[in-house]
Amino acid sequence: MILSLSCPDRPGIVSAVSSILFETGCNILDAQQFDDTETDRFFMRVAFCRLEQSKSEAEVAALIEDLAKRLDMTFTLRQSSARKRVMLLVSKFDHCLADLLYRWRIGELPMEVTAIVCNHGREHLASSDLGDLPFYHLPITKQTKMEQEARIWELVQQTNTDLVVLARYMQILSDGFSAKLSGRCINIHHSFLPGFKGAKPYHQAHERGVKLIGATAHYVTSDLDEGPIIEQDVERITHRETPDDLVRKGRDIERRVLASAVRHHLEDRVILNGRKAVVFTG
Amino acid sequence: MILSLSCPDRPGIVSAVSSILFETGCNILDAQQFDDTETDRFFMRVAFCRLEQSKSEAEVAALIEDLAKRLDMTFTLRQSSARKRVMLLVSKFDHCLADLLYRWRIGELPMEVTAIVCNHGREHLASSDLGDLPFYHLPITKQTKMEQEARIWELVQQTNTDLVVLARYMQILSDGFSAKLSGRCINIHHSFLPGFKGAKPYHQAHERGVKLIGATAHYVTSDLDEGPIIEQDVERITHRETPDDLVRKGRDIERRVLASAVRHHLEDRVILNGRKAVVFTG
Amino acid sequence: MILSLSCPDRPGIVSAVSSILFETGCNILDAQQFDDTETDRFFMRVAFCRLEQSKSEAEVAALIEDLAKRLDMTFTLRQSSARKRVMLLVSKFDHCLADLLYRWRIGELPMEVTAIVCNHGREHLASSDLGDLPFYHLPITKQTKMEQEARIWELVQQTNTDLVVLARYMQILSDGFSAKLSGRCINIHHSFLPGFKGAKPYHQAHERGVKLIGATAHYVTSDLDEGPIIEQDVERITHRETPDDLVRKGRDIERRVLASAVRHHLEDRVILNGRKAVVFTG
Amino acid sequence: MILSLSCPDRPGIVSAVSSILFETGCNILDAQQFDDTETDRFFMRVAFCRLEQSKSEAEVAALIEDLAKRLDMTFTLRQSSARKRVMLLVSKFDHCLADLLYRWRIGELPMEVTAIVCNHGREHLASSDLGDLPFYHLPITKQTKMEQEARIWELVQQTNTDLVVLARYMQILSDGFSAKLSGRCINIHHSFLPGFKGAKPYHQAHERGVKLIGATAHYVTSDLDEGPIIEQDVERITHRETPDDLVRKGRDIERRVLASAVRHHLEDRVILNGRKAVVFTG
Repeated sequence: MILSLSCPDRPGIVSAVSSILFETGCNILDAQQFDDTETDRFFMRVAFCRLEQSKSEAEVAALIEDLAKRLDMTFTLRQSSARKRVMLLVSKFDHCLADLLYRWRIGELPMEVTAIVCNHGREHLASSDLGDLPFYHLPITKQTKMEQEARIWELVQQTNTDLVVLARYMQILSDGFSAKLSGRCINIHHSFLPGFKGAKPYHQAHERGVKLIGATAHYVTSDLDEGPIIEQDVERITHRETPDDLVRKGRDIERRVLASAVRHHLEDRVILNGRKAVVFTG
Repeated sequence: MILSLSCPDRPGIVSAVSSILFETGCNILDAQQFDDTETDRFFMRVAFCRLEQSKSEAEVAALIEDLAKRLDMTFTLRQSSARKRVMLLVSKFDHCLADLLYRWRIGELPMEVTAIVCNHGREHLASSDLGDLPFYHLPITKQTKMEQEARIWELVQQTNTDLVVLARYMQILSDGFSAKLSGRCINIHHSFLPGFKGAKPYHQAHERGVKLIGATAHYVTSDLDEGPIIEQDVERITHRETPDDLVRKGRDIERRVLASAVRHHLEDRVILNGRKAVVFTG
Repeated sequence: MILSLSCPDRPGIVSAVSSILFETGCNILDAQQFDDTETDRFFMRVAFCRLEQSKSEAEVAALIEDLAKRLDMTFTLRQSSARKRVMLLVSKFDHCLADLLYRWRIGELPMEVTAIVCNHGREHLASSDLGDLPFYHLPITKQTKMEQEARIWELVQQTNTDLVVLARYMQILSDGFSAKLSGRCINIHHSFLPGFKGAKPYHQAHERGVKLIGATAHYVTSDLDEGPIIEQDVERITHRETPDDLVRKGRDIERRVLASAVRHHLEDRVILNGRKAVVFTG
Repeated sequence: MILSLSCPDRPGIVSAVSSILFETGCNILDAQQFDDTETDRFFMRVAFCRLEQSKSEAEVAALIEDLAKRLDMTFTLRQSSARKRVMLLVSKFDHCLADLLYRWRIGELPMEVTAIVCNHGREHLASSDLGDLPFYHLPITKQTKMEQEARIWELVQQTNTDLVVLARYMQILSDGFSAKLSGRCINIHHSFLPGFKGAKPYHQAHERGVKLIGATAHYVTSDLDEGPIIEQDVERITHRETPDDLVRKGRDIERRVLASAVRHHLEDRVILNGRKAVVFTG
């Protein structure tokens, strides 16, 4: 099972958590914690297994819930084998979509895909193998944005979607929709934020003559391009490379950064910390 | 010898240059060129050696000068063994200074150090081995900025300095002084530009929760933090790292990025291209 | 057009090549050369375009052929738009295959896929979208190795295949077959050669406790794991990561290293230099 | 204080350790643990501070000692402010020495330098600022190796040296001397082990045509180039770079890899795990 928590810092938290697990007969497989001395907030992720003589899952959960009340703790506790339900939103560029689907098919991403939503027709995703996955073509215009988002939100609810991934969706979510998806919507921005916010970042990068380009996966907030960063990576470029070369290199960075961020989220490795994210990597 | 040039693009430039070298009996050791199709400008760097039967240096130079006139070419031509004269400006943080001096001492940077200028007293550089190098303590205040810069400029002229390196100098040069040093003053900015311009970039980076920090070496222009970029690099960080950790990691990135940029400049590998730089790396 | 050549070094080669292009009215778009002072061999790649008033392709080619004879030059000259014909060999792990096919579909890899050959049945490649591409299931055993390789060779000839890519093929080609494919067969080895040659490199790496793992794309020679290296890359790992984690990270490295090597080959950027390869990257 | 431990894995270790700290009134600042499921061994590093009402250092230590006996635990417990005593061994190349000394002077490496030992005269280290540090010129020949090592060992004992750093010492320690220094002698090997073991690794790398070179910091064992790896890093190279260029680039990698490994050791972040090392990075 995986326990992921945060709470105000105080002495004894690790002791309290580990004692519950010890006393209920569980064995800690992996534990990471972080004490943010600036905000005085404590973060912890514990992977543990119940052994033959362990107390029941419900009993363990009840004890943790009690502790959470005492320590003013926000937490999630779930079976390692329980797969999160993920909806993928995409626009015309499908390299992130194709990559996520491939990783899912070979078992690298422990998730259920609830739906693929595209604001363009299925024919635009011809290079991706969508298989039998539910596909929704939900076009969007300035005038229909509210209705389209309402339709997506309906789908999120109907399908019990836990996480929405903007896999190069190229649409800016409204503030209201961003708020509804807070902490469970990941975007890939095709620049090394905070450099080159906004449109056409690779062209901006080329224009500025930088020597490395990158991509950023972050939670979506109403503050565009400013949500908590989960993962970033870069690659070296030279003056010889055209904007098109940067776009090509960028595709590689984007898909691996997004896949990594999604995997961290699926494994409960990311905990929000104000406008930042604590990421307990493997 | 090293020939470094730029001119409007047109057919026949490589042919013209290489024919001059062939006909004067020189042998090309290394050549790189770049055709900027956006600005229609051509850039080239040729390293070549004169052989026993070669024409004299003056004759080669004369032919290249002729060609330059015909092709509206900006160029430099110099002996590979001729060392540029470099002045180092530094403030209280001396890690870049110490690093540049060490590289110079072991022969890694082909330069003559003309002077070390510091706006603080020599005692602040106690961790650096300045040896017998001429040291100038030139304090600066808002009121004395003009005079201090005038004094540095005087030193630049007296010492025939070819290149001024701001090795974490922490002072913003005035527009006028920047203009005088155009194309021959390199700064190290302790952020991965254009992210985190201005003061305390590592604290900004920590605040924003980025996953990689970097440094940028660029030519100084009157447009602060916007000069042509010569070199950049990054390192990965985690949520565990405090601003102090970032500053420590940053020192490593800064000194290697600055040293690399300086070396490229000393070897005539950098050619200005508007607000960008063409860098013919080795 | 792209001209790619190597020959014994001597003064005047660049001049001779560029003069031919100038005199036939062609314009050089990009040129890179390298002078290997150890072997006294010269390497060059020139991308150029014919203009309206240029001589015909045949005339340009004839002049280069003449020069090649004089300078004892090995060269290839082809239309930039001419696509190489590529056969993909794969075993049970299809991440490299899926990746190459996706890149091909979106136009990133300028090639024609002549065939996909697998020593296992098509059902093992269910995660890859093979589309209508010719698929050959050619099983192999110790006893049938010769026959299987003969069959592949036959296919190579029938389909006019220019390049064979071992996309995690997991079979060692015989010396004879390697020789036939010399210089036109690229393998991806799932280790950072020359470390961890042979089988199960990620397990070897885990066992040894290294801090970075990598992958290597190289031309196949009869000397196993020793062919000229085209591309390599690495990623950082920690003690927390199991061999399975390394295998997962490895898939990412393998597919991007192989794709990069294949692209370099398709664009005539790789020239053999004994047991090494000169790679003129973009 | 910093507690660093390893023991056979069993349920309740984290609980036991954290409970002792909680009950003695200490506050955990940072804790990392690792459960090696292959060897069934558990590793933990805890940084904690005593608060006003905490029990005395001796009382905390006594409780941990008790626990250690019960759990068959190997551990170290020390004041965060206690500095380890470090001896630096060097040969003619002093880039690692100069770098370590600079980092020490600016307070980046929390250590006392007990001595600098060189098998060549002080004049060979002219580019390094040795200041008033005790310097020993201990030449070595095949015939005097035993005596020289005995002399170093004597110095280690006299100076209460905790850690010996081979900062490009270029001499192979005898098996006996390696055994005496087991777990407290760090070497920098100028290759990305296990590739290019032995002499002249950069020349080997150039010869083989690899695309990345690296360096490795490891504990010294009698099995040459095979000790537990603490840190590694790489840099990209191209066919253009000569062995001399690789040596230059290598200096940068070596010094940062060694400094990083030494810092990890000084902060008790490295715990031996058979022929591997667990490294709890910051």
